[in-house]
Amino acid sequence: MRSEIIAVGTELLLGQISNTNAQWISSRLADLGIPVYHHTVVGDNLERVSATFNQAQERSDVVIVTGGLGPTEDDLTREGGKVVFGQELVEHKETMEKIQRYFDQNQKRMSENNRKQALVFKDADVLENSEGMAPGQIYHHNRVLWIFLPGVPTEMKHLVNNHVIPYIRSNFQLGSQIVSEMMHFIGIGESDLETKLHSFITSQTNPTIAPLASEGEVGLRLTATGDTTDEARQKIKDLKHQLLEYVGDFYYGSDSITIEETVSDLLKEKELTIGSAESFTGGKFLERMVSLPGASSICKGGCMVYTAEMKENILHVPKSLINEYGTISYECAEVMALKSKELLDVDIAVSFTGVAGPSSSEGQPPGTVFIGLQIGEKKTEVYKYHFHGGRDQVRIRAVKKAYEILFHRLKK
Amino acid sequence: MRSEIIAVGTELLLGQISNTNAQWISSRLADLGIPVYHHTVVGDNLERVSATFNQAQERSDVVIVTGGLGPTEDDLTREGGKVVFGQELVEHKETMEKIQRYFDQNQKRMSENNRKQALVFKDADVLENSEGMAPGQIYHHNRVLWIFLPGVPTEMKHLVNNHVIPYIRSNFQLGSQIVSEMMHFIGIGESDLETKLHSFITSQTNPTIAPLASEGEVGLRLTATGDTTDEARQKIKDLKHQLLEYVGDFYYGSDSITIEETVSDLLKEKELTIGSAESFTGGKFLERMVSLPGASSICKGGCMVYTAEMKENILHVPKSLINEYGTISYECAEVMALKSKELLDVDIAVSFTGVAGPSSSEGQPPGTVFIGLQIGEKKTEVYKYHFHGGRDQVRIRAVKKAYEILFHRLKK
Repeated sequence: MRSEIIAVGTELLLGQISNTNAQWISSRLADLGIPVYHHTVVGDNLERVSATFNQAQERSDVVIVTGGLGPTEDDLTREGGKVVFGQELVEHKETMEKIQRYFDQNQKRMSENNRKQALVFKDADVLENSEGMAPGQIYHHNRVLWIFLPGVPTEMKHLVNNHVIPYIRSNFQLGSQIVSEMMHFIGIGESDLETKLHSFITSQTNPTIAPLASEGEVGLRLTATGDTTDEARQKIKDLKHQLLEYVGDFYYGSDSITIEETVSDLLKEKELTIGSAESFTGGKFLERMVSLPGASSICKGGCMVYTAEMKENILHVPKSLINEYGTISYECAEVMALKSKELLDVDIAVSFTGVAGPSSSEGQPPGTVFIGLQIGEKKTEVYKYHFHGGRDQVRIRAVKKAYEILFHRLKK
Repeated sequence: MRSEIIAVGTELLLGQISNTNAQWISSRLADLGIPVYHHTVVGDNLERVSATFNQAQERSDVVIVTGGLGPTEDDLTREGGKVVFGQELVEHKETMEKIQRYFDQNQKRMSENNRKQALVFKDADVLENSEGMAPGQIYHHNRVLWIFLPGVPTEMKHLVNNHVIPYIRSNFQLGSQIVSEMMHFIGIGESDLETKLHSFITSQTNPTIAPLASEGEVGLRLTATGDTTDEARQKIKDLKHQLLEYVGDFYYGSDSITIEETVSDLLKEKELTIGSAESFTGGKFLERMVSLPGASSICKGGCMVYTAEMKENILHVPKSLINEYGTISYECAEVMALKSKELLDVDIAVSFTGVAGPSSSEGQPPGTVFIGLQIGEKKTEVYKYHFHGGRDQVRIRAVKKAYEILFHRLKK
């Protein structure tokens, strides 16, 4: 089975955005054991879109097209397909109703070109796009399976996970089965992890082990093949068990789980509530947790106290303490954690004060960060760090570090 | 002049890395005014590499190839070119000496396959790769200019900046200079903007106008060519002036500026301070503003009041109000804005309450959002919305909408 991925959009050819969609889809197809032979990007030009589609029709069994499904005249994927398939486009009733409803609910007038988004190939399977307007489509033309998806990554990913992969799994005989698992580690560097697991990484062929570093953490992708999914899964399970004997202390979960999800799960398990007092992080710590479904059972609230005045007025950090030690200090982080725990009436409070940059503050260089942690009635803990990087990076690393500390404290 | 970019490497088709090289090269070529018509990724397979090269030879004037120049058997770019050009490969003396020197210096034995990296097309211009082993090459075949570059981004970029761009500048009549500007609009949909500017978009050729929708806003990229940069710039300026007569109300800035930056600048200009009371957005509104350098002069702090209890305890929203109307209500958003303005002692307070999903809350469906706005001593304004999408999307859209409202209120 040969597959290829086509992205339609001049913005890609102008270098305004990168074709990350092709990467993401490729890795999902790799998991299914479907080889991808080509990625192509073509601009918003009917002649070139049609030529690209014609070529794909001739050389591939599965063609996945992203982008070009919007409402404007530049959106030419439907028209390109029409040329190649010789198939008419029809209005999809449910989509048209959804578009109309959106404009009605937001009391806006719908301009006529929005109707375009409801056009689908006659006889296509229409894939409801719960994240946006234009639906996905599955269409068969002369033994080639065509899958049309919107170019917006969140919409595309949702359709692939919920419709395309289940469709492929149930309609194709996929030969040897591939199973992979991404293991996530925090609190250990990539080179350190690699050194500890060196003999495994160099000798393993099935499953393979591929390390992957990302912001403040490290991943290991295990990929196994087997005659059955169960067989491949068992190989992953066995290897994982061995790896955890060496680096289990740093492992927090696998696949799509994040460190904030892991910490949230630990809090739920222990029935603990949490809140934060955040200065230079501006609420980023709590925001990551609130982004998770069901956050309300653990996450009560927080104080964003960006100025010294706010630290005094909202959190009652004493003026004398600020005068003596400054707001970017061990002492201030300590009182922020302690006072916010009281004010928010939570089991655990986390505080952040520091210098995100670009300039120094109170004589402290950018990257200086204090994280305070108040767990129950225990003694307040304060950690000091120096992070590298620009303003955003310092904030992201500080928040990640707080989750790392919480993870290690809670899993005990 | 038509150009295209080909990346050779199975790792791209497996989704292990994204083809950021194509994006980067495209944006450099756009600066030179050279249109890119296709991006292609092909795997390490001689037949498919040759077929891809043959197609490029037929349809393009400039072909840039990245990757496949390494020492292993999988590196097939040279062999693919040999098939298409019918040209022999010769050993490049300086490169071979450099490779040998590297192994000598590091006291390693050079394996025979390393010689492969010194092979170049006979008569090619060899581009010294100061960042790595395999050199770049410039080669002419039947009026098509071929540029071969290593796939490692640092090596590729170095060669493009130091060799390829100077070569193109001095060997091509680029004649015209290109200037482009990305105009940002908020509060108007892509289709509506296009309808209002329809006559411009369809008739304009220099500058061209390309709409681009992103989360909650729309962009228009104007691209002009001229004999001089000044001439091109003037064309952009004139067209922009005309466009703003039609859609000026929605324009907030150009190029790298964001809506939160624009709002921050307006607040600084008017010497106003701001704070927020956020429920389901979890601090995301204020966090966006705190992420900007110099936020402390306008951005004092905020309250993340995720639970009903926090709304009562921190913001003193009356229990009776919550019992009667619920927390996801016009009334609650109103009191949250009013009370947070007092508590934070700011000029403007913004409040958020709503249902991010995935499940309903207080009988309200996901996507229901109330945004409250308290400006000075004016009457509190409350806006109700229904947003589409998953949990993250609803939160992002709500925050964007608040910036949109603030922008329109502040610029008056």
